[in-house]
Amino acid sequence: MSLSEFEIIDQYFTPLGHWQGPHTVVGPGDDCAVLSPPPDHQLCVSSDTFIEGVHFPVGASGALVARRTLAGAVSDLAAMGSEPLAVTGALTLVTADPDWLGSFSGALSELIQDWQLPLVGGNISRGSELSLTWTVIGSVPTGSYVTRSGASAGEDIYISGWPGRAGFALSKLQSGQQPPEQLAKHYLAPVPRLVLGQHLRGLATALIDVSDGLLADLNHLLDGSALGARLNAQNMAFDELLQASADSPAAALTYFLTAGDDYELCFIAPVSARSEIDRLALKLALPLSRIGETKAELGLQFANLPEALTESMLIKATGYRHFA
Amino acid sequence: MSLSEFEIIDQYFTPLGHWQGPHTVVGPGDDCAVLSPPPDHQLCVSSDTFIEGVHFPVGASGALVARRTLAGAVSDLAAMGSEPLAVTGALTLVTADPDWLGSFSGALSELIQDWQLPLVGGNISRGSELSLTWTVIGSVPTGSYVTRSGASAGEDIYISGWPGRAGFALSKLQSGQQPPEQLAKHYLAPVPRLVLGQHLRGLATALIDVSDGLLADLNHLLDGSALGARLNAQNMAFDELLQASADSPAAALTYFLTAGDDYELCFIAPVSARSEIDRLALKLALPLSRIGETKAELGLQFANLPEALTESMLIKATGYRHFA
Repeated sequence: MSLSEFEIIDQYFTPLGHWQGPHTVVGPGDDCAVLSPPPDHQLCVSSDTFIEGVHFPVGASGALVARRTLAGAVSDLAAMGSEPLAVTGALTLVTADPDWLGSFSGALSELIQDWQLPLVGGNISRGSELSLTWTVIGSVPTGSYVTRSGASAGEDIYISGWPGRAGFALSKLQSGQQPPEQLAKHYLAPVPRLVLGQHLRGLATALIDVSDGLLADLNHLLDGSALGARLNAQNMAFDELLQASADSPAAALTYFLTAGDDYELCFIAPVSARSEIDRLALKLALPLSRIGETKAELGLQFANLPEALTESMLIKATGYRHFA
Repeated sequence: MSLSEFEIIDQYFTPLGHWQGPHTVVGPGDDCAVLSPPPDHQLCVSSDTFIEGVHFPVGASGALVARRTLAGAVSDLAAMGSEPLAVTGALTLVTADPDWLGSFSGALSELIQDWQLPLVGGNISRGSELSLTWTVIGSVPTGSYVTRSGASAGEDIYISGWPGRAGFALSKLQSGQQPPEQLAKHYLAPVPRLVLGQHLRGLATALIDVSDGLLADLNHLLDGSALGARLNAQNMAFDELLQASADSPAAALTYFLTAGDDYELCFIAPVSARSEIDRLALKLALPLSRIGETKAELGLQFANLPEALTESMLIKATGYRHFA
């Protein structure tokens, strides 16, 4: 390995700093970046770490790592209803492989512009495993952010998009098969639901992004408002491509409810918002599916589960735990 | 290891979130923290990664890791003249050792309050090496931040405090000796110069913190303004304790100029600011030493070097490089 820390930065990251968006006053290279957030806005901040072999496969290309990890981090901004402001990245490399760095930097260059998220700082270290930490900063008009709590009993539970597709695609790729492209793209290049999140300000009473699986993250959402839920499995079978690709309706529903890493948004809204949310789905060309309703009694109930699937099987499979 | 990620957070980090300072609207636990920065301020943002065996010794106590790494991160805020607003931490653990976690969390709890830097988010992962990334966020009145550039020829170069003490103490500790407590504390519990940095707004024309050694970081500062400097070694020999502890005047000067990790501030200011800077030193009870002056010709010149030390020996020793 012959590239120094400064050469890596110069070659692969300094060019990314040339695009800094409308709110960056001082970009990368000084002790801090300086940002001018829009007036009368609050800030949203989140940090996420991604480790090779834990959060992405060993040997993943630089582009795949950039696409999946940055989407995961930015999804937390979407889940507050936030607009993007800036991101910093801390990358720990084992070796300085020019191919990997070029692939990572190339994908990152596209993503930060697509998602309007200037890279304003970060650092490169050498360590014994490949990892990176993104810190995303966004802004919301003061008081308009949407938290995980705030829902009431008798409200609707929604999920955006097509949860389960990323997990299904990953399982196929891991077993050496090629999933249909329409499914694979949800794993290979997930898109955080920033625009949807912003539209949910004032509509959703509680909001979370799905990174550990819908059921696990819905549980966090219900915990936040001390509610339970009644879910209808019939309303989770709309994804014809997933239904056609999975081995059975039960398998498709299991991916839908328990596979992580789609970065869809799960949210709760009052019944009075139904028509507005239906219009929003048309406007964004994105399914916003009513999958159940909140109730005062804690716990989850399922209606219309496919045969061969029980509530307890689903509740067991509620996402990945570190240190377990 | 029997603690889950969520148990670690609950036991060691959730209690730290109980203190959130005046600008935190939503603390840890949601998808993002929400902050209300003071009006008419800009944001300063910096991310730093610290890895066991690279940035702190293998086997270092949790308290030492917390104290040294957070000081290093916060020092970047000081180096912009920024006030602290919030910090996020991303901790990657190899094992969940309750003693280490208690020591880390206990020290962190003190530091975030001492430095007025609420811990608003972060995450815990498991990996094959211990590392952590801090992202610090600060605020400055709009336009008042101080960068690394902006100095002119014929201005004074200053260094705060007692650079070299941390490096000297570390070298003693590494060879199994006990350094004097007054030196050791600069390594064991460095204090970022936040208050000094804020006072330098409007006074300093260029500012950097010293993390790689004074000479290396002064070079960054001079690069930022395309200047050279004439340095006077006589003005670097004021630290009687370091002089008395080191083997020779040449050894003391080498620590002063090349040892990293004191987190002092190096800055440039016009000659007209001398009396105000002298008053500031008295007010803060902190040496602010004039060690040289900028000049239009690039390069460093030294006056009054001790015998046994040449310019080229010093210029060779300009700090640590990753991937070199």
